Amino acid sequence: MATITVPRVVPSPAEDAAALLKAFQGWGTDEQAVISILAHRYATQRKQIALEYEHKYSESLIQRLQSELSGDFERAVYHWMFDPAERQAVMANAATECIQEEYPVIVEVACTNSSAELVAVKKAYHALYRRSLEEDVAARATGNLRSLLLALVSTYRYDGDDNVDMELARSEAKIVHEAVRNGAAAGGHEELIRVVGTRSKAQLRATFGCFKDEHRGSVTKALPRGDDPTGYPRALRKAVRCVADPSKYFAKVLRNATRESAGTDEDSLTRVVVMHAEKDDMGAICAAFQKRASCTLEQAIAKETSGDYRSFLLALLGS
Amino acid sequence: MATITVPRVVPSPAEDAAALLKAFQGWGTDEQAVISILAHRYATQRKQIALEYEHKYSESLIQRLQSELSGDFERAVYHWMFDPAERQAVMANAATECIQEEYPVIVEVACTNSSAELVAVKKAYHALYRRSLEEDVAARATGNLRSLLLALVSTYRYDGDDNVDMELARSEAKIVHEAVRNGAAAGGHEELIRVVGTRSKAQLRATFGCFKDEHRGSVTKALPRGDDPTGYPRALRKAVRCVADPSKYFAKVLRNATRESAGTDEDSLTRVVVMHAEKDDMGAICAAFQKRASCTLEQAIAKETSGDYRSFLLALLGS
Repeated sequence: MATITVPRVVPSPAEDAAALLKAFQGWGTDEQAVISILAHRYATQRKQIALEYEHKYSESLIQRLQSELSGDFERAVYHWMFDPAERQAVMANAATECIQEEYPVIVEVACTNSSAELVAVKKAYHALYRRSLEEDVAARATGNLRSLLLALVSTYRYDGDDNVDMELARSEAKIVHEAVRNGAAAGGHEELIRVVGTRSKAQLRATFGCFKDEHRGSVTKALPRGDDPTGYPRALRKAVRCVADPSKYFAKVLRNATRESAGTDEDSLTRVVVMHAEKDDMGAICAAFQKRASCTLEQAIAKETSGDYRSFLLALLGS
Repeated sequence: MATITVPRVVPSPAEDAAALLKAFQGWGTDEQAVISILAHRYATQRKQIALEYEHKYSESLIQRLQSELSGDFERAVYHWMFDPAERQAVMANAATECIQEEYPVIVEVACTNSSAELVAVKKAYHALYRRSLEEDVAARATGNLRSLLLALVSTYRYDGDDNVDMELARSEAKIVHEAVRNGAAAGGHEELIRVVGTRSKAQLRATFGCFKDEHRGSVTKALPRGDDPTGYPRALRKAVRCVADPSKYFAKVLRNATRESAGTDEDSLTRVVVMHAEKDDMGAICAAFQKRASCTLEQAIAKETSGDYRSFLLALLGS
């Protein structure tokens, strides 16, 4: 269930564009007006507004928003203005620029989209950067991290859950166990990356299930924490969790991002909320958040953020 | 330029289906009638005929053709009945079954399609086999051959030729040279596979050009012939040639397949003719064939094949 709310009667793109221009004019920007329009329109509607705005006022709406707004609020609105494929291409490209730290974005894009959605992201990447996501990941990561990320972004997995092979799951659970036992540096990880990088998600969930039955603990718990400087073991754990249960994974990202003790991680918070507010899985992410945290996601955001940024995120969550 | 010829006034699918049924009935099959219809219809028209036939006579046209025809002729007509994406998925799947020998088919599918065409093949593969091409290649090949083939079938390359970076080409020509100098077994091939597996074809052609300028010989000539039992060096050479000049590559496949001394290789002959007869590149392949062989492709086929198989291939070539 998506969380954004769109009015029953939506103003025309021309009316919205005019209202946005009005919000930009005069002394200071009327941020509340911006939120009341853009946070309550679907991606196709926002695109139409941007087209209408550019046509009528001969300037890019996105660029005007960037100059009118600032800080976390500006970055959140900026990402919100793209359609899902373009937005993820932009985020993935930024992540390749400092891939040692930002690899979680690449893992999420690669592992939580359907195969068709992932191709759409890669197509948007071509159009925006005239390069492929694959070549940027491959040229900028190293070692096992490169092997893993490249396998994840490249693959066109079978999407169905109608062809799970339990015998294969049992034999590949052994491969996982072998790699876990030998640690990240030793051999066996080539095979593990092959399995995680090519099998369907349904097949992988069966494999992880067999592992759990056999070894009385989940794959993610068993995977080495390790201190591989490339970040490979952590990236692998994230990939496994994205495949095993994406809602639970994103709920954990949000919990970490709103943790009082560590300071708020606005980038991760923005990324997950903006990415999912108009997707079907946002309801499940909110539920998974609340199950483990002592409050709702809205409460956590209200506590950890402030100003227009807070208003915008809460609007996307339907408050 | 495609080579198949289609009559100016094409009979309706119902008329074609009726004519095919008539060709099947009675004592023996009228193969010439089958050829005169199916070799002179485009893929969409053949699909309509098959639908009409099944609808009207409650049997699969492809299965009936398989039971009525035989040998190389039957196999050629069988492959001809698929649309290009399905046909390549069927051929690639068969190749994964004995990948040590049949890897050239995988290399061709991966390296001579556009990125969008390759996704279409992989989508057809999902629909036909409820698995991915990636997982079958990864599970059935080993060593460097696996790394190479998996990289080639997975990647979604940038297709444009508007973003060639000559500095990158020069630096990656060095990576190629390094790998060539050290042989297939030594290190350096991981980097080479990264380059060949992720860069756009235009970028790779620039890299191969830099290599040639620097080392006074083509990459394919320089690549180790090697005796890697997995077939990796030969697969790599084929991939480089498919990227560098696909028409020249296919012309060479056809020359080898029709070489008198070695006996005719009907599988390769069928594959290339059936795959390209209705594609724009067949004219260029025929021209490249004639440039190096002492005869036209039609003459070579007429000499090396016989019967209905010969008639069918020649019909596809527009004779």
